[in-house]
Amino acid sequence: MTLSTADNEFESQAQALGFDFNEEIKIGGNYAPVIQHRHEVYISGQIPRIGDQVVVTGAVGQDVTLQQAQLAAKICVIRALALLRNQLGSLSRIKQVLRITVYVHSAHDFTQQSEVANGASDVLYQVLGEAGRHTRTSVGVAQLPKGATVELDLIAAI
Amino acid sequence: MTLSTADNEFESQAQALGFDFNEEIKIGGNYAPVIQHRHEVYISGQIPRIGDQVVVTGAVGQDVTLQQAQLAAKICVIRALALLRNQLGSLSRIKQVLRITVYVHSAHDFTQQSEVANGASDVLYQVLGEAGRHTRTSVGVAQLPKGATVELDLIAAI
Amino acid sequence: MTLSTADNEFESQAQALGFDFNEEIKIGGNYAPVIQHRHEVYISGQIPRIGDQVVVTGAVGQDVTLQQAQLAAKICVIRALALLRNQLGSLSRIKQVLRITVYVHSAHDFTQQSEVANGASDVLYQVLGEAGRHTRTSVGVAQLPKGATVELDLIAAI
Repeated sequence: MTLSTADNEFESQAQALGFDFNEEIKIGGNYAPVIQHRHEVYISGQIPRIGDQVVVTGAVGQDVTLQQAQLAAKICVIRALALLRNQLGSLSRIKQVLRITVYVHSAHDFTQQSEVANGASDVLYQVLGEAGRHTRTSVGVAQLPKGATVELDLIAAI
Repeated sequence: MTLSTADNEFESQAQALGFDFNEEIKIGGNYAPVIQHRHEVYISGQIPRIGDQVVVTGAVGQDVTLQQAQLAAKICVIRALALLRNQLGSLSRIKQVLRITVYVHSAHDFTQQSEVANGASDVLYQVLGEAGRHTRTSVGVAQLPKGATVELDLIAAI
Repeated sequence: MTLSTADNEFESQAQALGFDFNEEIKIGGNYAPVIQHRHEVYISGQIPRIGDQVVVTGAVGQDVTLQQAQLAAKICVIRALALLRNQLGSLSRIKQVLRITVYVHSAHDFTQQSEVANGASDVLYQVLGEAGRHTRTSVGVAQLPKGATVELDLIAAI
């Protein structure tokens, strides 16, 4: 199979992060990483995990920098893309990303949640082009699973 | 009418919690507990209320235990299922739960939001079987309406 | 073109707030304020900005009052309606608002997130009538982009 441009771009970004995009993404409960229904695919909330390790933890503006939080957002969206590719065979089947919600574990006075989310939005655009443009909500939360700095979920149309 | 397996399982779980699943679910503003549009049903954010009482309040990891928060998540999802059954007549009409988002009122250092959310995911699987598998996002928030420990919303396909 | 009742009501509410509903809504990253897909329109998270200014900032229950937070929610939803009107030509094309999520930047002990969200729900009902009834989730978060008091996103069916 010839990889699409989107799949190639995804693989090179994922490999640069040390991400094994063929690994099974582990699920700890009675839920699913991906649910496809008609023309839409829902992706469960992703944290910045590479292999078994959550690689960016703590509150941005306190424990981690903006740049580290942007990297966390990037890893989250790479994981979401990995799940989409597993589900769809190729990322080129994505017609449009409809929504991402970016939850940012934030220090009390940190207000650059949008800038953190750009770390994910930029990857979607680089990998998917116009199909990667999306609506977005970014908010600052008190805490996240396993102390992660960012959690991101996504809905895409195919 | 013969109750489906899903409806029976739902009723026994709801009754065990002391939940009157036939009660009118109260709404305090210009919004709706349920909106159905074509093949999808949206459920408003549910807190762990039984009758007039929010039965689990406070921050998990500080005011309440993990087990109490899991119970809160279970009550929230039972309420969501009650709304779905009122809307659809029978839970057997649910084709797939697409998404739940679980907001967990968390102490500063509490990072087991996923474990709290399992309290809801397990019920969906017990009541609906494969149709109850869903994507999930669980996050830790600073506070919730009426001091509730958990709030949960849901989208289902019919 | 004759304005629909919905468009007229929207314009008078927006003008009363000093909102220039014809302005370009600025986007700072690789994402979109609005994405339409088949019968659904997604709106990105809106903060209470009028022109270049975020007009309500800080935590409700600490820096701002409930009334100010309700005004913030109202401005957010007016912005969402402005985006819908730009996208659709007229608000009368909205068949149903499916979901709003209202993130409220809350002091530790503030639990009236639902009352804050009423500031948005009331506008939807006043402008759109029955089509403005919606499901809703309102939660208390630690912080929001640019220190905003409220952020609101929306999904509508057309």
